[in-house]
Amino acid sequence: MRRHFEEVEEELRNRLLHMGGLVEEMIHWAGQALLERKEESLKKIAKNEEEVNQLHIEIDDRCLKLIALHQPTSADLRFIMACVKINSDLERVADQAVNISENTVVLLAQPQLKRKLLDIPRMVELAGGMLKDSLDAFVRKDVALAQAVVQRDEEEDQLKSEAFHELMQIMQADSSSIQRALGLILIARNLERIADHATNIAEDVIFMVLGKDIRHHAENKVR
Amino acid sequence: MRRHFEEVEEELRNRLLHMGGLVEEMIHWAGQALLERKEESLKKIAKNEEEVNQLHIEIDDRCLKLIALHQPTSADLRFIMACVKINSDLERVADQAVNISENTVVLLAQPQLKRKLLDIPRMVELAGGMLKDSLDAFVRKDVALAQAVVQRDEEEDQLKSEAFHELMQIMQADSSSIQRALGLILIARNLERIADHATNIAEDVIFMVLGKDIRHHAENKVR
Repeated sequence: MRRHFEEVEEELRNRLLHMGGLVEEMIHWAGQALLERKEESLKKIAKNEEEVNQLHIEIDDRCLKLIALHQPTSADLRFIMACVKINSDLERVADQAVNISENTVVLLAQPQLKRKLLDIPRMVELAGGMLKDSLDAFVRKDVALAQAVVQRDEEEDQLKSEAFHELMQIMQADSSSIQRALGLILIARNLERIADHATNIAEDVIFMVLGKDIRHHAENKVR
Repeated sequence: MRRHFEEVEEELRNRLLHMGGLVEEMIHWAGQALLERKEESLKKIAKNEEEVNQLHIEIDDRCLKLIALHQPTSADLRFIMACVKINSDLERVADQAVNISENTVVLLAQPQLKRKLLDIPRMVELAGGMLKDSLDAFVRKDVALAQAVVQRDEEEDQLKSEAFHELMQIMQADSSSIQRALGLILIARNLERIADHATNIAEDVIFMVLGKDIRHHAENKVR
């Protein structure tokens, strides 16, 4: 009985990690399209999104069945609850990647802004890295790694503020740049949201491992 | 045993509805501050946010205990899972209301834009109404009402697109309006997200009542 439960649990974990891999690819492709002006990367995003949406439903269903058919211990239950929440966060990260790709389509139809933007490439890298690490922390039950993800969220917020400030100056200096700068502002907001979701995942990992809720505590930023 | 379970379930539902009421107030106050330039309304938002954050943790804890200590039937389990998800959506709506209030502070420090914006007041009303109806649908297990919420999400998206278009024109016509118009664009995005969360709640209600997952189906928009 216990052995069977562990097998089903392992299968659930693998499906969730497969979904995580698809979502990481989506962020990578969206960033590539945006930063290297590679429009062909955008086409791959829609294919992954479809699979992510299927997995979103499938994983919720697996979690429900796992609780209903077995009698999970409290540690098992924390694992299953973490899966439910990570599933929901991953689906929303996928939505954000789709939003980025929609904004990128508009940007690629126009010439590049003259000023080189440094914050956005760093935001893409940081958000993608935070998501990867939050999922690694989940697999390895690595609280220290999860805590490091939570701490990096502040850096992403800082980068977003800098990007906003810079893009607003660009708009004010040249009204022909308004649409493009606005597109980048919205993308910066999407990237910030991805970092927020990675932070949620990291917090869920910490709760799963320690049974201790660190959300909304003074030492963490209230998002 | 069954009777005790129902009492605990009822208590959980009441706590979640109390949280929903606090979040509805936050949207109302944020809208009031923005549309009637009532800065004093913003102060109340922070107080509710603190309580919402406490409830977020408390409700998750109640859900876990309810599963661990009782042996929920599959209908009970769908109810508990809906509570977990609605809890998470409500907390995120509260975050969006806080974002609106932060953007509003910046707007209130400057004179009002000359052009009267019609889309934003409608977005505030629609998003607030969708949240209210999604929670009413939850209490009454009202699938038809939940479906009506899902359908109204498209209207909010449409209003957001119109607001974006109008605000971009304002920016292009007068560079001194850029910061204010950008603030309103970000607020329109926040309101759209609130409507998305209300839609998530409505979808969870439908699943809870019917045991049927309507997310990501062709007849619904993929968000």
